[in-house]
Amino acid sequence: MERVIIDMDEVIADPMGDMIAWYKKNYEGDINYEKMLVGSWTKGFPEEHQPLVRERLLSPGFFRNLPVMEDSAEVLREMNKRYKIFIVSAAMEFPNSLKDKLEWLLEHFPFFTWKQLTLCGDKSHVYGDYMIDDHIWNLEGFNGKKYLYTTAHNLSVRGYDRINNWKEAGEIFLG
Amino acid sequence: MERVIIDMDEVIADPMGDMIAWYKKNYEGDINYEKMLVGSWTKGFPEEHQPLVRERLLSPGFFRNLPVMEDSAEVLREMNKRYKIFIVSAAMEFPNSLKDKLEWLLEHFPFFTWKQLTLCGDKSHVYGDYMIDDHIWNLEGFNGKKYLYTTAHNLSVRGYDRINNWKEAGEIFLG
Repeated sequence: MERVIIDMDEVIADPMGDMIAWYKKNYEGDINYEKMLVGSWTKGFPEEHQPLVRERLLSPGFFRNLPVMEDSAEVLREMNKRYKIFIVSAAMEFPNSLKDKLEWLLEHFPFFTWKQLTLCGDKSHVYGDYMIDDHIWNLEGFNGKKYLYTTAHNLSVRGYDRINNWKEAGEIFLG
Repeated sequence: MERVIIDMDEVIADPMGDMIAWYKKNYEGDINYEKMLVGSWTKGFPEEHQPLVRERLLSPGFFRNLPVMEDSAEVLREMNKRYKIFIVSAAMEFPNSLKDKLEWLLEHFPFFTWKQLTLCGDKSHVYGDYMIDDHIWNLEGFNGKKYLYTTAHNLSVRGYDRINNWKEAGEIFLG
């Protein structure tokens, strides 16, 4: 079976969407999507509120309660029958996220097992036939076919084949 | 730089040694090292006490307080200057171990960063130039040079080059 390496945040989970909803509910500042284009969506929040965003990212429970990206569970349920899927998240910067991410994955994607989750700091030693990720620094050194998953912070990136949503992923991987 | 993939339990950390010491202090049964040769050291404990061993393995804090394997920190401090080192642990079966393992590593091996730790369920998508591991199921599919790290449960395994202790690892990797 071919191996597909799939990122978590901004690909199957939506921390940016959750953070924006929380921010708009509690604060008044404007979110600047242009500033996200440096490669991190946290840069889009007003500078004076970035420490609050960071604090929330680091707190226990944040990654346990994230929304699931539309159609990702339905498409991955089918892909899981035809491919060897690994969910690989560069999560080690967020120690409180580790157990949260495991529990979140097994709740929303119950067809996966704990054997399919990898939490790391750096993806340069991960290989497979395909990788779907929203960060070019994860895709760059990968040995297989690379897909950039479209999100607000990578809209200006050129030179990668893109997947814009999970319906498109289904067309590519399930034919 | 060449990549070296190094396992955690029974290689740089000593859960078996810690569990045996705890068991002898609290219980009377005999530990049967022959029974460990099926590939898991937990099988060496008397059957009636295996649920207690399992419960302790799963509890928060167990992996936070493990002894460090002799000479591993000194040798890895030097190897870390010459190789790209990743510590890769198949830890996902033990949800409470995840944060514990990160904190343990950064305490005892302060020259590593969080970027060098990978916690997974299955190592079949991890690659590099060398792998040091005590389980043949981790070594089997690996693309680079494999070393079996000797421990009680793998004494009967044949067909692998072995590293018996960290002094030997230093001779191989530091010359």
